[in-house]
This record gives sequence, structure tokens and C-alpha cells, in this order.
Amino acid sequence: MKRAFRFKQIGIVAKPHSPGARGIVRRLASLLRRRGVTCFCDPATALFLGRQGKPRRLRELTASVDLVIVLGGDGTLLSVARSMPARPIPVLGINLGGLGFLTETTLEELDAVLTEILEGRFEVEDRMMLRAEVIRRGKPISAHRLLNDVVINKSALARIVEMNVEIDGQFVATYHADGLIVSTPTGSTAYSLSAGGPIVLPSLRAFCITPICPHTLTNRPLVVPDSVGIQVTLGAGAQDVYVTMDGQVGLPIKAGDRIEIRRSGVSLPLVLPRQRNYFDVLRRKLRWGAR
Amino acid sequence: MKRAFRFKQIGIVAKPHSPGARGIVRRLASLLRRRGVTCFCDPATALFLGRQGKPRRLRELTASVDLVIVLGGDGTLLSVARSMPARPIPVLGINLGGLGFLTETTLEELDAVLTEILEGRFEVEDRMMLRAEVIRRGKPISAHRLLNDVVINKSALARIVEMNVEIDGQFVATYHADGLIVSTPTGSTAYSLSAGGPIVLPSLRAFCITPICPHTLTNRPLVVPDSVGIQVTLGAGAQDVYVTMDGQVGLPIKAGDRIEIRRSGVSLPLVLPRQRNYFDVLRRKLRWGAR
Amino acid sequence: MKRAFRFKQIGIVAKPHSPGARGIVRRLASLLRRRGVTCFCDPATALFLGRQGKPRRLRELTASVDLVIVLGGDGTLLSVARSMPARPIPVLGINLGGLGFLTETTLEELDAVLTEILEGRFEVEDRMMLRAEVIRRGKPISAHRLLNDVVINKSALARIVEMNVEIDGQFVATYHADGLIVSTPTGSTAYSLSAGGPIVLPSLRAFCITPICPHTLTNRPLVVPDSVGIQVTLGAGAQDVYVTMDGQVGLPIKAGDRIEIRRSGVSLPLVLPRQRNYFDVLRRKLRWGAR
Amino acid sequence: MKRAFRFKQIGIVAKPHSPGARGIVRRLASLLRRRGVTCFCDPATALFLGRQGKPRRLRELTASVDLVIVLGGDGTLLSVARSMPARPIPVLGINLGGLGFLTETTLEELDAVLTEILEGRFEVEDRMMLRAEVIRRGKPISAHRLLNDVVINKSALARIVEMNVEIDGQFVATYHADGLIVSTPTGSTAYSLSAGGPIVLPSLRAFCITPICPHTLTNRPLVVPDSVGIQVTLGAGAQDVYVTMDGQVGLPIKAGDRIEIRRSGVSLPLVLPRQRNYFDVLRRKLRWGAR
Repeated sequence: MKRAFRFKQIGIVAKPHSPGARGIVRRLASLLRRRGVTCFCDPATALFLGRQGKPRRLRELTASVDLVIVLGGDGTLLSVARSMPARPIPVLGINLGGLGFLTETTLEELDAVLTEILEGRFEVEDRMMLRAEVIRRGKPISAHRLLNDVVINKSALARIVEMNVEIDGQFVATYHADGLIVSTPTGSTAYSLSAGGPIVLPSLRAFCITPICPHTLTNRPLVVPDSVGIQVTLGAGAQDVYVTMDGQVGLPIKAGDRIEIRRSGVSLPLVLPRQRNYFDVLRRKLRWGAR
Repeated sequence: MKRAFRFKQIGIVAKPHSPGARGIVRRLASLLRRRGVTCFCDPATALFLGRQGKPRRLRELTASVDLVIVLGGDGTLLSVARSMPARPIPVLGINLGGLGFLTETTLEELDAVLTEILEGRFEVEDRMMLRAEVIRRGKPISAHRLLNDVVINKSALARIVEMNVEIDGQFVATYHADGLIVSTPTGSTAYSLSAGGPIVLPSLRAFCITPICPHTLTNRPLVVPDSVGIQVTLGAGAQDVYVTMDGQVGLPIKAGDRIEIRRSGVSLPLVLPRQRNYFDVLRRKLRWGAR
Repeated sequence: MKRAFRFKQIGIVAKPHSPGARGIVRRLASLLRRRGVTCFCDPATALFLGRQGKPRRLRELTASVDLVIVLGGDGTLLSVARSMPARPIPVLGINLGGLGFLTETTLEELDAVLTEILEGRFEVEDRMMLRAEVIRRGKPISAHRLLNDVVINKSALARIVEMNVEIDGQFVATYHADGLIVSTPTGSTAYSLSAGGPIVLPSLRAFCITPICPHTLTNRPLVVPDSVGIQVTLGAGAQDVYVTMDGQVGLPIKAGDRIEIRRSGVSLPLVLPRQRNYFDVLRRKLRWGAR
Repeated sequence: MKRAFRFKQIGIVAKPHSPGARGIVRRLASLLRRRGVTCFCDPATALFLGRQGKPRRLRELTASVDLVIVLGGDGTLLSVARSMPARPIPVLGINLGGLGFLTETTLEELDAVLTEILEGRFEVEDRMMLRAEVIRRGKPISAHRLLNDVVINKSALARIVEMNVEIDGQFVATYHADGLIVSTPTGSTAYSLSAGGPIVLPSLRAFCITPICPHTLTNRPLVVPDSVGIQVTLGAGAQDVYVTMDGQVGLPIKAGDRIEIRRSGVSLPLVLPRQRNYFDVLRRKLRWGAR
């Protein structure tokens, strides 16, 4: 996509405690400043830049820049995605060691990629996000926007969970399982894949509903359009059950609680290296197709 | 959906050799004639009606009626779907014993359902169809439209097949397997499910690419948007390999042959019983979710 | 098997809080007393019999009787199995509602089965048991004997667990997963099956090692002889990880802890209904093979 | 194992049409002759040695030597295993390019391994073999001894197969599937693994029964002791069905045919490189556990 505008303000978010991050952040900030770009950082990253740090809390940061550069792994990018404001801004993920599904660009490519981006030459892929709301006794107690998955999971010592699932009010099944994953296409290569789910291409507008260790041998993963609403209600005996967002934010839930999941109005514009092949990433991360 | 028009011409196609079919076809034809509808039948079904049979070959039949009533099982309906003309006409599946995924209406419901349909009160669900073309030395040798799946499969005694898969020209993987299934959402509950694929809701515009007994443990089912083109090319050593459409039409293919698969411009308008729940059919057919 | 001896002392253990248990225990005890058998009960069951209760703690009970009758479900029988003394005594499982894998005899069959057993006409199937020991900094901190499975599992909010597995000192793999199950054949139809493990016939002397949601797509279930020792060592970053025995007894474990698993010297002699077919139980419990 | 005797006569069997085989066979034969060993070859391999070839048909060859050296891949070794006489003789597999599960020794190791073997210093692992008999109208029409698996499989264009399975006369299930695999532990890493079966350690005396694409979602792989007899009977409608032994020998079977499978009285003594780790081979062949 040819973008006519030039980036004036760029946010930098680095993975905390990442070895070498300080040097890379300083190099990146100096490079951007020379190009006339103003940089903002989240508080932890700002410390690397001393007085020039311009610290902003993540939500403020994403609300005030034209592009966010994430230095780290997929986890750091997931946090940034959850802080995305209603007006989505492009995110570029730079990997610090190890390849990520979302942070495909390597440090070696950083300078060349930046040059292209600052000249407006880059591709973005809109990654669908989920909205999950926890309802207790009819009232919303918590709401989240997320990029990978909502996971309902029992604790290690708890009994199997009973979960009633409906799609647009239509009864799907009562799952008896360790838990249940509702993932976006982006999340289909994360936890859902470990639980036996399919790989869903990011350009497909769909959710994947994958049970975790179902006691019912016939409960297979379901792929549904992203236009539906999914309701998961915890059965009467549920104890020590948690709902987790992107594997990062978790809260305990109780018998009778309902999780309502639908597509978020906001999606994540992921900046992609040019000429990339989605399946190359699968090959490198999952040894997809390796003999 | 409220349809303003009245059906004037209805086609009847019964499963061949089905016990009881004669009586049911006669009753149905007489019922329709009393309502002023002209009936046409495929040649085998026409025999049940003697002089009033009006036999037509399947492709002519589907080209000249407003609705097709299929009496039989899913197999009979798949044949009708493959004969569908460019202008899609609604199809109602009546089951003769056993429940079908596509022929949900039972004989008991036949009279009531017919009344509603003739009054224009019915729902249709557009089922996406596939177009598969076999290319040999750069030239198309065979083309098919189908509702469930394209299956590439080695014969029982042949060696494992090597298949190169591309999506819109992008290399996906070289599969080493017994075969490969490309299914529509409708076909996701057929062969693909047996091979480990997910269940895809009919309203999702997607294909499922499921390997059959892959030697590569990392090759998982893929779900991709129906807007892509899928190319499967047989590797150099391929011998005794076949491509099968809906499990009904098969032809031998050779090393270097390419199967090109994309969404058909034609979809199948499936007439549904009112108040139906897709998952009820799964429950009855697959014991989905049964403990 | 024809047993020459007559049972003189029989233990009764009923599932706590089971509706109807009181009446059944009283009827059973009275029936046994009329036959000249002395009954002992665990403390909770003894309450049903008032002054005639002869309460004994489970370990004392199993050490002093010739046969234990379990009234309840598989869970109650698993508890009794874990209390089995070094000299194994036969156990008869009577089901109170719902069929169990281990408690196959129904209330309706109780009188007829008891008559046969008291006359020494019955079959027993020796069910292999596991011994699991938790080693911390080189010292055993906990040891268990169990019938179904040892499960290592992370808590709902914890990160993926890294587990090093060795068999007889030979490196097997480093698993990155939610957890790992080591099951007996008896346990193969329990949690291991939900996690994707095979069904192992009870007469096979084997363990099944099944990963739970492995991140590594190539880690498949392993079946190994029961003569080996299995060592599972928690990786450096492990947090909020638990080891659970038969899904009933759990304890937290830490990075570096080692679980050593081998066959127990004690097995469980399970009294079986005559003419039983193992696969009938699978059919009824798992809908094994149901279409 | 320390073997007191010295090998006097060694058979050499090379994979046909294998590039470089001529040179290796000549080098091997010359090396053995210098050590005073008499070499015999199968007819194709003998051609490499000209007048010194001593050609013997495979069955005669294996009946008259103390050790067989197989040069090639697993396929060549499977053929030799099927020709094994009642008195089992050790087999050493040398790999010509690519690693095999059964031919672990590489060309580089050949000299060192030979020296050790000729001095009687080597390990053997007894690999269990299967005996499969095809019964038609009550009469045996074909019998086979094999190392990997018996596979019942429909042809690419045939309908699903109905197979009745019994173990020691006890009804297991009626499978509706593309086919069924009965494998030894050695065969568990071959076709059975592709069909979803577990990995069974070679030292476990067991069979694995794995359905191929079962229509019944509840039919999971079964692991049973090698002491049982397995009967598979083809259902009434079976057409275009084949039974295949080790993927190499196949014959058509008909509705009503029965395949009887049990452990062969003969096992294969596989000569192993010292200090080998079974899981290293899995790692290299299957990318077992690779991230």
C-alpha cells in the first residue's frame, strides 16, 4: 500500500528486561530523530533514553502516535494490541532474538525496513481483534479487546468444567473439558493449535472454537464467521475456573458467569515485511511441513 | 424469506433403488398436480409415474424448473447440486430413512413443509460450491462444480503421494501423504472430518485443506478464505493417484497434473426446515457432543 | 477363577453424600451378616449402620478384610485403590447411578453377584498400579501409589511448562506443554484419552505418556513397557505447577523437582462381572464406535 | 551381548538400483573375505561381484548364513525380514543415504561397526513380527510374516469399508473407515503414526490397531498385548479393498474375507549401533520434539 502521509510521531515499546534492548532503542530513537520524527516511549522503554525519553503510559502512547514500533516478541506486541485506541494505528514488530508470528522483522532488516516505512512504502494486514465481556448476574464486570484468544480454563487441581456454548442464541453444545479457546485467525497458530485446532489464514474473517481436552470424543474444533456472537456460560459446579486474554490477563470466574465474545470494532494494522509469505513464518516457527 | 412468486414447475429426483420410493414419488406428484404445479422427473424417477412421468435428463431438468425436490439421502442431493445450472434454483432434500446433513426434512414433515413452500414461506441457505479443474501439460482436461469436496487420493497399493500446494501462487507446503481434501463448509462434516479437519459453519465463506494421513506430523488442517485460488500439483513420482469429486466422480491423474480449485460462481440454495438448528443435525448425525 | 476360600470379613466403602447409599449399605450389611460374614466400614459409611457400624480408617480397613465392596463411582474406587495394603485384596465396584469403567456391577446385579462371589465363583483382573515419587533437591518429599494417572499440570494463569523426560536414564524429549500425563492402562480411558492418548487394554503391561496441549506438534503419545522407570524433571522457569494423583490428590511442585514413576509392586485385583466384554464398557461409557 | 561364536558366513543384500551400491558391496565383500568370512548375496547384489558373487535366492540366503547385512533403506530391510527363516539370524542395516528407523548405521560407521561385530561385540534388539493370514470361505488363501504392519485399505474410488474387529473372539467394534492398520511396535512409527496412532517402544510386546479416517469420531487407536489374536472381517458391501503387508505386498480381498493376525513365532534380531538412543532416531526421522 502506498501511504501518502509521512510519519511524524512514532511510539517505541520494547520488551522489558530484554538483553540488548537499551542499545537498540537508543539507536532506533537517534535514527528516527535524524529523520525528523518525534519519538514517544512507554515508561520502561523511556528509561533507556534518559532525558529524551518522553514517557507515556501505553494507552496514551498509542492514542498519540502514527505508528508503533514494538521491539521484542509476540507477547510485547499482544500487549500493545490490547491498548490500541478506537482509531487503529499501524504496528511494526521487530524481533529481538527468536522469530515471532507477529514480530517477523529481524534486527538485521530494521534499517532497510524503516527507510521503506518512512517513505510510505509498506504493506499492512488488518488483523481482526476480539471483544470479550464477562457477565455476572446479568451485569458486565469486565471487558477486553484482544488479538489472539480468550481462554476459559480450570485450575490444575479443579474438576472438569461444564460450559454451555451458544452462537447467536442457538445452542451449540455443552462442553465437558479442561477448558475452551475462542481464537482469532491470528491466535489460531497459538494455544488453539496446541489443543488440536486448525490453522486459519489471517485474511479469513472467522473465529475458531477449540475445546481443551474434551471428555466428549466427538467435540471437534469449530470455525465460525466473525459476524456471530459467541456466549459461553459456566455450568453449575464450576470451581477454580479462570478466563485469560491473550495468555496475559486473567481473572477468576464463577458458576453461572457468562463470557460474551464478538469481533471488536477495532482491528490491528500489522506492518509486514514486503514479499513475505505467511507460510514461511509457519515453516520457521512451527516447522510446518518439515520432514 | 418471503418469496412472492408461486412455484409453477417442480423437479422430482428420487434415489435409485430406494425401497418405498415409488409410492412416495406418486403421492408427491399427485399432491403437486392438485395444487396446479407441473412436475418433471429425471428418467429413473419418471418410470414411477408411468405416462405422466415427463422424463428429463438431470441437466435439462434443473434448467427448467423453479424448485427441485430430492427424495433420498445426501448422495442424491450431491448429484443434483453438481447438475445445477448457472441460475441456481432452490433444492429441498427429503430423507428416505436415516438423517442426512443436506436432507434434513423427514417424510413425516413432507406435507406440512410442502404447504409452506408452495405458499412461499421458507428459508434458504446459500451453500457455496467449488470449481475444480484438472490441468495436464498446461491444458484443462476436466472441470467440475461440486458441493462437498475435491479429494486427491492414492490407490490402496500405491506409494505415498507428493503434492505441492500453492494459494494464489504463494507456496504453502509440499505434502507427503495418502492424499489431500479441499472441502467447502458443507463438506467439512464429510470426509474432511474423518481425516481430522474442523467443522466449518456453512455461513463461513471458506475452504478447508485437510491432508489425509500426512507423513509430516506438523501438517495441520488449514482454513482459508473462499476468495483464494488453490493449486495442487502432483509430484514427479506419483502413480495410481485419483481425483474424486464429492466422492462420486473420479478420474486418474498423473505426475505433473495440476488441480485448480476456486469458488464456483454458482451456489446451492438449500431449502431448510424452519426453526432448524445446525447443531441439532450435527448432534444427530455425528453424535456431536454426546457423552 | 475358582477360589477355594470363603470370605469371612468384608469391607464396605460407600461414596459420601450419595443419595440412597444409606439404604443400600444397610441392605448389603444385613445380607452379608446373614451369610456369616463380618462387615467393616470406613467411618463415613459406618454411620449408616449405627451401632453395628464397626468403623475403621481406610488403611486399617483394607489391611484387615478379604474383600472390599465399593458402592459409588470410579472416584470412590480410586481412593480405595490408593489405600490398598502390600497384600492386595480383591475389590468389587458396585455402581450407584451412572456406569463406571471400574464399577461395572449395577445395583440390580448386586444380589446375584454377591451370591457367586461368596461361593468363590468370580473372575479377577489384576490392574497394574503406578508408584510416583516427588524428589526435591535429591530427596523424596512425597510418594504415592495410584491406579489411573500421574498428571503434571500448570495452573490456569501460568506459562507453558518445560519438562525433561527420561526413560531408564535415556533422554526422551523436552516437552513444552500445559502438562504431561503418565497413565496405567486403566487410566488410558480417563484423562489421557481426552488429551489424545490411545486406549490401552488393561492386560497390557504398559504406561502411556501423553502430553497435554504440546506446543511441539511432533510430540505424540508414547506407549512404553511397565518395566521402565520414567523421570520427569521440571524446567528452570516452572511456576504454579502441580502434580496430581488420580485426579484426587495434588501438590505444588517447583522448578528442578523430579517425579519418578514406575510400576508399583502392588496391583489391584478387580472383581469382574462374569461374561463381561471390556469393549461393552467402552461402548457405554465413551460411545466407543457409535455412529 | 557378548557372542562367543565368530560369524563364518554372512549374507549381503543391497537395495536394487541404489547409486553407489556396486562400490560399497565390493568393498564390503573384500573386507569380509580378508577376515575369512564367506559371503553370499541375493541375485541382484551378486551381479556387483562378478564371478565371486555366490547368488542365492533370498529365502535360501537367509537360511544359510549367520548374519545378514542389508545395504539400503528400511524398505530393503523389511523385505529381508519377511524372508527370515524359522531360526532367526541377526540383521545389520547400513543406510545408503537418508536415515532409516531400521537402518541406523551409516556408511561412515561401517568399518568400525563391522570390526566390533566380527569380534562378537554388539547388541541385538529382538523386533517382534506379525503373522497375517487371509481366510476366504473358511479356508486360508494366503499367509505372511511381517515386521511393520498389515493394512486393510479401500481403493481411491471405493466406498467406505465396514470392518468387524474381534480380539480373541470378543467383539471390539464395527469400524466404518477408509481402512485399518494393525502394526507392531516397529511399525508404530510408520503408517500408523500418520493415521494418528501412538509411538510404541520396540521393547513392548504389543500391537497397535489404528483406524484410517474413521467416520466414527469415537474410534481411537487401541494398544493390545501381543498374546491376543485379532480378527478383521470385511463387511457385506466391501468392494475394491486390499490388504497390504509392510506396504510392499498387496492382494485384493472381498466381502466376508477374514484377516487373522497374531504374533509370529519368529522375531527379527536387529543389530544395533552401541550406545544408541531410540529417541535420537525419532528426533532425526520425525523431528520428534523439535521446536
